[in-house]
Amino acid sequence: MQKLIEEFKTYLHKMHAYEHALGVMTYDFETAMPKGAAEDFAKTMGILGEEYYRLQTAPEFKAMIKALDERKGELDLVTRREVEVLSEDIARTDCIPLQEYVDYQMEQSLASSVWHEAKVNNDYAAFKPHLEKLIEYNRRFALYYAPDKDPYDTMLDQYEKGMTRSMLDDYFTRLRRDLLPLVEKTSARRDAIDDGFLFRNYPLEGQRALSDAIMQVMCIDRRHCSIGEVEHPFTTEFNKHDVRITTHYYENAVASSFYSVVHEGGHALYELHTGDELIGSPLATGTSMGVHESQSRLFENIIGRSEGFTAHVFPTMRRLFPEQLSGVTARDFYRAVNKSVPSLVRTEADELTYSFHIMIRYELEKQLIAGTLSVDALPRAWNALYKEYLGVDVPDDTHGVLQDSHWSGGSFGYFPSYSIGSAYGAQFMHAMRKDLDVDALVAAGDLAPIIDWLTEKIYRFGRIKNPEQLLMDVCGEPFDPKYYVDYLTDKFTAIYGL
Amino acid sequence: MQKLIEEFKTYLHKMHAYEHALGVMTYDFETAMPKGAAEDFAKTMGILGEEYYRLQTAPEFKAMIKALDERKGELDLVTRREVEVLSEDIARTDCIPLQEYVDYQMEQSLASSVWHEAKVNNDYAAFKPHLEKLIEYNRRFALYYAPDKDPYDTMLDQYEKGMTRSMLDDYFTRLRRDLLPLVEKTSARRDAIDDGFLFRNYPLEGQRALSDAIMQVMCIDRRHCSIGEVEHPFTTEFNKHDVRITTHYYENAVASSFYSVVHEGGHALYELHTGDELIGSPLATGTSMGVHESQSRLFENIIGRSEGFTAHVFPTMRRLFPEQLSGVTARDFYRAVNKSVPSLVRTEADELTYSFHIMIRYELEKQLIAGTLSVDALPRAWNALYKEYLGVDVPDDTHGVLQDSHWSGGSFGYFPSYSIGSAYGAQFMHAMRKDLDVDALVAAGDLAPIIDWLTEKIYRFGRIKNPEQLLMDVCGEPFDPKYYVDYLTDKFTAIYGL
Repeated sequence: MQKLIEEFKTYLHKMHAYEHALGVMTYDFETAMPKGAAEDFAKTMGILGEEYYRLQTAPEFKAMIKALDERKGELDLVTRREVEVLSEDIARTDCIPLQEYVDYQMEQSLASSVWHEAKVNNDYAAFKPHLEKLIEYNRRFALYYAPDKDPYDTMLDQYEKGMTRSMLDDYFTRLRRDLLPLVEKTSARRDAIDDGFLFRNYPLEGQRALSDAIMQVMCIDRRHCSIGEVEHPFTTEFNKHDVRITTHYYENAVASSFYSVVHEGGHALYELHTGDELIGSPLATGTSMGVHESQSRLFENIIGRSEGFTAHVFPTMRRLFPEQLSGVTARDFYRAVNKSVPSLVRTEADELTYSFHIMIRYELEKQLIAGTLSVDALPRAWNALYKEYLGVDVPDDTHGVLQDSHWSGGSFGYFPSYSIGSAYGAQFMHAMRKDLDVDALVAAGDLAPIIDWLTEKIYRFGRIKNPEQLLMDVCGEPFDPKYYVDYLTDKFTAIYGL
Repeated sequence: MQKLIEEFKTYLHKMHAYEHALGVMTYDFETAMPKGAAEDFAKTMGILGEEYYRLQTAPEFKAMIKALDERKGELDLVTRREVEVLSEDIARTDCIPLQEYVDYQMEQSLASSVWHEAKVNNDYAAFKPHLEKLIEYNRRFALYYAPDKDPYDTMLDQYEKGMTRSMLDDYFTRLRRDLLPLVEKTSARRDAIDDGFLFRNYPLEGQRALSDAIMQVMCIDRRHCSIGEVEHPFTTEFNKHDVRITTHYYENAVASSFYSVVHEGGHALYELHTGDELIGSPLATGTSMGVHESQSRLFENIIGRSEGFTAHVFPTMRRLFPEQLSGVTARDFYRAVNKSVPSLVRTEADELTYSFHIMIRYELEKQLIAGTLSVDALPRAWNALYKEYLGVDVPDDTHGVLQDSHWSGGSFGYFPSYSIGSAYGAQFMHAMRKDLDVDALVAAGDLAPIIDWLTEKIYRFGRIKNPEQLLMDVCGEPFDPKYYVDYLTDKFTAIYGL
C-alpha cells in the first residue's frame, strides 16, 4: 500500500510538471511571445497536450487510481480526495478519442490567437468559424462524458460542482426581480455622481507604482507573485510559490487597472495560501471557479470599493497623481468608483450592473450549446439583450461579442461562476463579520486578519472541500443569494440616497 | 524507407516540442518568474529534463537513426546531416546514467538561481559548492563520452567542432604578441577620448525607444523577435518565428544597452534567417557557438562601432536625448564608444581588450577542469590574471568571478567561442567586402543587402555546414586570425593616432 501511494504521488508530480510547463507556455503566449509565432506555439501545445493526455489516460495510472479507490478507507484525507477528484477529471478526458483531443488543443490555441486579432480589428467574421468549431467540440465532449445529460449542464458542473440551468434560471430570475428596479433608479440618477476625474491622463509609470502599493496593502508576497501586462487581465498559478497576476493599463482610465489588480489579487491570495501539504497535488488550487471568483470579487468590490479601503488608498493616489486629483476628496473617489451606469464592457462594469452582463452571456451560451442560436446570429442576439436589459447600444463587436477571451479558449459554462462567485462572496463576508470588525480593519489598511480568516476557513483547503461543503462549513447554511441582493441594495440605496 | 523517414521526422518534432517548452520555461525564469519560485521551477525542469532524456536515448529512436545511417546514401542532404548531428548529440547524452543526468539538470537550475543571488550579494561562498559540483559533473560527463581524451578538449569540441587547447594556446599567444602592445599604447592615451557624456542620466523610456530604433535599422522583424529585460542579456530562440533578445538598461550608461541590443540582434538575425526547410529540425539553429558569436560581434563591433553606423544612429539619439547629448557630435560619439580602457567587466569591455577577458577565463577553465586550480583559489587566481594582463584591481567578486552566468549554467569551454567568433567575424567581413561596399551601405543605414549576403552565405544553412566547411565556402580558406589582428590594429591605430 505504501509503495502504491508513493508511485501515485510520483505520478502526480510528473503530471504537475506538464501542467506547469503548459501553464508557463500559455502565460508566455499572453505576455511575451512575438505575435508571429502563434502557429509554432500551437504545434508545441498540441504535441505536449497529447503527452499530457497520454499520462492522464495511461492504463497504469487508471489501475493505480482504481486500486487506491478500492482501499479508500485506509487513505489519508488528501490522498482520498485526490483519488476522487482525479477519477472525475480522468473520466472527462478519457471519453474523448485521442485524435479529437489533440485536434481540439490545437484548435483552441489557434482560436485564441485569431480572437486576439479579431478583437483588435473588429472582425467577428474571422473568429466565427473558430467559435463554431469550439462549440461543436465542447458539445460533443460533454455528450461523450454524459450522454444522457444536457450538455450545457455538464459544462456548468465542470466549473461549479452541482450548478445547473434550473438553479441558474431561478438565480437570475431573482436578480432580475430584486435588482433590475435598482439598476433603473441609479441609472436615472447617473448625474448624481461625478467620476470625470477618473478619466484624466494617468501616466503608466504612476499606475504601475499604484499597482505595487495595492499589492502591498493586500499583503501579496512579491517573491511569489508577479504582475504582468496583457490585453485581457487574468491570474495564473503554477504552484503556491509562483502566482502571476496581470493587468492592462489605460492611460485615461485609472480605475480600470486599479480594480483589475484588486480583483486578480483576490485570486492570487487564494492560490498563495493553499496548504503546504498540497504542494504538487492536483488539490493545490481553488476548489471551483465560483469560489475563486468569490475571492476576487470580494476583494474587488466588497472590500476594494468600500469607503474604508478607498479612503485608505486615496493618499497614495494623491501622492502619485497630485495634478489629476487636485480638488478631489477621498469621499469623491469612493462615490466615483461606485458610480453605476449600464455599460458595454463586462470588465469595466460597475458592481450593481455586473451580474446582468453575466446573465446575458448565460442566456446566449445556453442557446449556443442547445443549438437554438447560431454563431451567425450571435452578434445580433448579443446586441439585442444588451439593449433589453442594460439599455445600451453596442457600436461594434470589439465592444460587444468579441470583448471576452473565454469563448476563444473553449470555456463555455464558465461565465455564470462570476456572478455566483459574487453572491458567494457576500455570503462569506456575512459570516466573517461575526468574527471580525471588517470595516475597522479595512479602514486601517490592516488586511492581514481578514486574509488569515479566509486562509483558515477557505484557502488552505484547496480542492479538499467542494463548494457546497465549504459554504456549509464557513457559513453554517447552504448557498443563499439573499446576502448578495441585500448587500447591493443597502450599498446602492445609501450611495444614491434612494 | 519513406515510412522510416516520416517516423523519424515526427519524432524530431516531438523532441523539438520539449526543447520549445524547456526553452520557454528558462526564458520565463530569467525574465518573469517571481524569485521565490526557483525550487519548484527546478523540480519541473528536472522532471521534464528526464522525459526529454528518455526521448533522446530511447532504443526505438536509436534504432531509427541506425537504420537511416546504414542507408545514408539514399537520404536527402538535410536528413543525412540530421542523422549525423543527432548521432553525436545522442552519444554525448547516452553515456550518462539517467539518475546522474536528472540530478545534474536539477543542480544546474539550482546553481543558476543561487548564482543570481550570490552576484547581487557579492557572496562567492554561497555559489562555490554549486560551482564545484558543476565542474565535477562536467568533467565526469566528458570522460564518460571520451575516456581517452582530455575532458576540456571534449568540452571545447562541443561548442566549437574541432577546437582544442593546443589551437587556442597558439591563438591567444598570437593575440598577446600582436595586441597587448596596442592595449598598452591606447591605455596610456586613455585621456585622448572623452566618453563622459555616455554616463549622464538616460531615462529608461528613452533607452527603450532607442532599442526599438536599433532593431529597426537592423531589419529585425518584431513580429518574430521580442526584446525583454534581464540581469545578464542573452538571446534565445524556440524556432525561426520566435526569437527573444534581452537587454539590461543602466540609467547612467547608455552605451551598455545600446551595444547589448546590437550584439543580441546579431544572434537574432542568424536564427531568424535559417532556412524554412529546417523548421522543426535540430539543424534549425546556428552551427556553432563560435559562428553565432561571429554574427553578434560582427554586428556589435565591426558594424555597430563603425563610423558609418554611429553617424547613422546618432540623430535618433539626439532626438531622444537632446539635453544629455547637447554639444556632442556624431564623431564624438564614434570615438567615445571605441574608447579602449582595460576594465573589470567582460560585457562592458571595449572591442580591443575584450579578447583578453576571454583569455583569462580560458586559462582558468583549463585549470579548473584539469583540477590544478580549486574553486577555493579561483577568485584569487581571477584577480591575479586581471592584474597581470589588464592591469586592473578587482574590488569584489560581483565585478570579478561572479560577473558571468556561464559557469552557473554548467557551460565550460563556451567562453573561447566569444573570441574565436570575433576573429571569424573579421574574416567573414573581409570576404563580404569583395562583394559589397559595406561602408557605404552601413553609413546609409541600409543593412538589408548585408543581411541578405549573410543569409545566402551563412544563415540559411543552419547546422548543415560545420564551422570549418562554412569558413572554406564563404572565405575560400581556413580560419586565420590575421584578419582580426589586422582589423583591430588598423582601427585603433587610426582612432588613437598612433
